[in-house]
Amino acid sequence: MPPQIQFRLRIRRNDEIAVGPGKISLLEAIDRTGSISAAGRELEMSYRRAWMLLDEINRSLKEPAVSTAAGGRQGGGTTLTPVGRELIQRYRQIEATAEQAAAAELKKLIKLLAP
Amino acid sequence: MPPQIQFRLRIRRNDEIAVGPGKISLLEAIDRTGSISAAGRELEMSYRRAWMLLDEINRSLKEPAVSTAAGGRQGGGTTLTPVGRELIQRYRQIEATAEQAAAAELKKLIKLLAP
Repeated sequence: MPPQIQFRLRIRRNDEIAVGPGKISLLEAIDRTGSISAAGRELEMSYRRAWMLLDEINRSLKEPAVSTAAGGRQGGGTTLTPVGRELIQRYRQIEATAEQAAAAELKKLIKLLAP
Repeated sequence: MPPQIQFRLRIRRNDEIAVGPGKISLLEAIDRTGSISAAGRELEMSYRRAWMLLDEINRSLKEPAVSTAAGGRQGGGTTLTPVGRELIQRYRQIEATAEQAAAAELKKLIKLLAP
């Protein structure tokens, strides 16, 4: 099996991960599914856990990453705000930039691995 | 508190992390201390855990990352091989390259965070 490369960016503040792979995946799942509970199911986490992560994301940003329409949990659904979309886009772009920049050096490291 | 940026590289193969931050930190600690048990203490892991991680590292490389002098656990100490040193050096260089390449984009992402 060829080796899989993972570059993961985490931004910590006050002993909390303000932005990291789990939170970005949650926002992406909310964008796909339009709901916190469906996103939680997709990522195999409880509604409570998804809601708490989302609350941490929203508190760590200047403006919230999602907006919930009237009706709440059972009702109106949850969509990403422009800031939420920008956060995902920038995060994924940074990962791609990092992988591209390090590609040549990564090849040399991988040559140290057993076949 | 200013945000702390962490870029972490992991190389997975066969559902195992062949190279990752924990294993690189262990090799660095062995290099500093000259022993698996002292390195384990420094990283707050058991000798058994440190030994198992090291075994995984050695098995995932073409050549072992460490060599243990006669005497074993109580005796001769453990030192890095040239391959072990090259692995650490390349890993840390890749992290630095990634951070430098993504620095401008990271600043824009950090602007989305609450002050």
